[in-house]
Amino acid sequence: MKHYLSIDDIDSIPSWLSLAAECKKAPLKYRKLGEGKVLGLLFFNNSLRTRLSTQKAAFHLGMHCMTMNFGSEGWALEFEDGTIMDQGKAEHIKEAAQVVSQYCDVLGVRAFASLTDKEKDEAEMVLNGFKKYASIPILNMESATGHPLQAFADLITISEHSQKKNPKIVLSWAPHPKALPHAVANSFIKMMGQNPQFEFSITHPMGYELNQDLVQHIPVSYDQNKALKDADFVYVKNWSAYQPYGAVLNNDPHWMLTQDKLGQAKFMHCLPVRRNVVVEDRVLDGNNSLVIQQANNRTYAAQVALLKILESL
Amino acid sequence: MKHYLSIDDIDSIPSWLSLAAECKKAPLKYRKLGEGKVLGLLFFNNSLRTRLSTQKAAFHLGMHCMTMNFGSEGWALEFEDGTIMDQGKAEHIKEAAQVVSQYCDVLGVRAFASLTDKEKDEAEMVLNGFKKYASIPILNMESATGHPLQAFADLITISEHSQKKNPKIVLSWAPHPKALPHAVANSFIKMMGQNPQFEFSITHPMGYELNQDLVQHIPVSYDQNKALKDADFVYVKNWSAYQPYGAVLNNDPHWMLTQDKLGQAKFMHCLPVRRNVVVEDRVLDGNNSLVIQQANNRTYAAQVALLKILESL
Amino acid sequence: MKHYLSIDDIDSIPSWLSLAAECKKAPLKYRKLGEGKVLGLLFFNNSLRTRLSTQKAAFHLGMHCMTMNFGSEGWALEFEDGTIMDQGKAEHIKEAAQVVSQYCDVLGVRAFASLTDKEKDEAEMVLNGFKKYASIPILNMESATGHPLQAFADLITISEHSQKKNPKIVLSWAPHPKALPHAVANSFIKMMGQNPQFEFSITHPMGYELNQDLVQHIPVSYDQNKALKDADFVYVKNWSAYQPYGAVLNNDPHWMLTQDKLGQAKFMHCLPVRRNVVVEDRVLDGNNSLVIQQANNRTYAAQVALLKILESL
Repeated sequence: MKHYLSIDDIDSIPSWLSLAAECKKAPLKYRKLGEGKVLGLLFFNNSLRTRLSTQKAAFHLGMHCMTMNFGSEGWALEFEDGTIMDQGKAEHIKEAAQVVSQYCDVLGVRAFASLTDKEKDEAEMVLNGFKKYASIPILNMESATGHPLQAFADLITISEHSQKKNPKIVLSWAPHPKALPHAVANSFIKMMGQNPQFEFSITHPMGYELNQDLVQHIPVSYDQNKALKDADFVYVKNWSAYQPYGAVLNNDPHWMLTQDKLGQAKFMHCLPVRRNVVVEDRVLDGNNSLVIQQANNRTYAAQVALLKILESL
Repeated sequence: MKHYLSIDDIDSIPSWLSLAAECKKAPLKYRKLGEGKVLGLLFFNNSLRTRLSTQKAAFHLGMHCMTMNFGSEGWALEFEDGTIMDQGKAEHIKEAAQVVSQYCDVLGVRAFASLTDKEKDEAEMVLNGFKKYASIPILNMESATGHPLQAFADLITISEHSQKKNPKIVLSWAPHPKALPHAVANSFIKMMGQNPQFEFSITHPMGYELNQDLVQHIPVSYDQNKALKDADFVYVKNWSAYQPYGAVLNNDPHWMLTQDKLGQAKFMHCLPVRRNVVVEDRVLDGNNSLVIQQANNRTYAAQVALLKILESL
Repeated sequence: MKHYLSIDDIDSIPSWLSLAAECKKAPLKYRKLGEGKVLGLLFFNNSLRTRLSTQKAAFHLGMHCMTMNFGSEGWALEFEDGTIMDQGKAEHIKEAAQVVSQYCDVLGVRAFASLTDKEKDEAEMVLNGFKKYASIPILNMESATGHPLQAFADLITISEHSQKKNPKIVLSWAPHPKALPHAVANSFIKMMGQNPQFEFSITHPMGYELNQDLVQHIPVSYDQNKALKDADFVYVKNWSAYQPYGAVLNNDPHWMLTQDKLGQAKFMHCLPVRRNVVVEDRVLDGNNSLVIQQANNRTYAAQVALLKILESL
């Protein structure tokens, strides 16, 4: 039984990429694989792309979907062991995960970082709670510290649009009015960092250093202009500070990505994106934006992850 | 590729009516037409009839449905061009519509009038936003200024129950505690007004004049009793003032429809209806009420609209 | 046409039990029975097990499901006759039930007790409102006074784990921070009480007497320790007072079920359960807990109820 919790669960990137290409060409080819199987999708947070693309992927594989907004439709979950549950939480993850495992064959879970409790977020309290107590495979639909479906869709997109053997790819921080999680940035960094063919670097203002366990040997620059020079792909994303955890240190509009800064590079973003805050209209409306293709590839990323899970059952 | 945005998108009313009759007799006859196709239903507002009847219609056509309450499950959408999105809106319609187009083959959208911003409502900001940026057919599940699925279901109902060649049909305003949109009235007026065989008129209190572009040559009376005389069908509906836009000018209970006023006419309403405010119990519980049949015909109206869309793909 | 409103709608318990066992062994055996049929699931309250297990059961029977959170997605319903609906309620149960009957073949309804209006709760205002005006079979997914799907799942679980001809079964009240309905306790009592082979009794603190019409000749003890002695199955559940209706009289932690009290008996609870308030961790995490099996049997309880309904159409 295989999970898809992080990109570490991809056994072979080349074979996943070629499977994604195959699914994109013939989406219904594996429609018998999921027949009679139930995919439960549990949302602890809002979702547009993940919600619809994962259902679409399941549909391609012949699976039956049951979606549930856990917060508003179910019961508030307790994740701590040994608690006296006399407050707001009505159900413990131990029961919830075991119970749901009996109604589903695969379980998708979406649960963002709290950005207030670093320890719980790092421990992936919700995702790992389900992993620990469920008896079925778990599909990460964005967790506190990672978004592996997004990262795989991003990789598919880069592989489709790369015209060089060693493309230069830059992850650039951008301003945003709200504190956002690190999940997308984390998974993208892991995905890019493990491919030696990519010339990958990160740029962000001082203070926005990400988890150093992930960044490790990847070059980081505080000078956005220098970092973006001659880039082939610029991935823009806001994140809040990692230290102090979840803080919005500055919203310097000079970090917004402009067409001038982008030059001839391809523009990437996971969406939703705030126009003229994160990136200017000219970029999104220009020919070098890949954001719509990235979103389209979410379907095939989910389809490959589900397919690998189904094959492991 | 055909949309169903307004009743203007009906190419031939007689052929749509006969197709509706055919679908009603043999609901699953066209169940192969939608096989492998995905219908996305995006709700920006509450819905009972539209939500269930459109899913039922899709089921009859073999389509796969994905429903989503956009407001609570997705991201607040920005519709203006060029905005600096540093406030509450997290995603722009340009991205949302393009993205969703990749996950669905047909897209239903329900988005009521704001009743506060006449210009945006008249421009059908939400519906036309999706139409402009989506690359797939759009199905109007009630928009700011029209409800063409309701109007077609109403026409089916009238055609089933009319015993005259030239039935007299009256649209009568009724009191209501809240400000309601003009969508149902608008589409009904357009539908009735374009059929020269119908003797169609409107009655409402002074001040509740609707958009004159729609009403045009249709007789309007401020005298409800006179207007209802010898009617064959009385369609009752509240709407707020068009000028000043969205105002509740009066709630005169004398405008409530009673059995005495109805006489031998058939009673119609789109539902939901407030009993003993809009219409008295005796009418709704009497044999001349067609409201349940109207609601039933919503399934076949949606089925025909979807069928025409599917044929155009 | 058969409903499943209460356990009184079970025509033969032995045949339902053997059908449940058959469905559990071969879940898809009757998958043709529901083909082309639509199950509507209307939720007036939150739900995890019922929501997912009923959909799973419908999937096993080949039915198509449409779920709806009536409160947040539809219109507030009026249930009184003759009301002037000028307040918050937008639609009357008369219309809602008739309308929904046209879109579905079977209708599941979940509507908890208000615990404030005893008369309306006892009259099963919501459930019976749908029963009265709908023209299709109604499936009770927990109503004000009963939860017959849970009670049947409980019976399946007991029948699977009973090693005696005359097991001793005890229903024990437990503390809880919130006022909870009587539905689960009521249906369990009815289910147990009508089986002469069960040695069934109830224990609760003074003041927590349940509806005497249900309890009748069943032994009730205020002494939990004495009641639990030599029990084979201990079903733990909180409920609020029946008189004064809905009151929380005490939360005496001594009534929490502990492993010491449980002894060798099997532990049962409908879930969700508050750990270390209703029952201590050791019990739930021990080998004698049947709560996960009970939840699993919810699927087969629903499947048998739906199967019987489908056969009656």
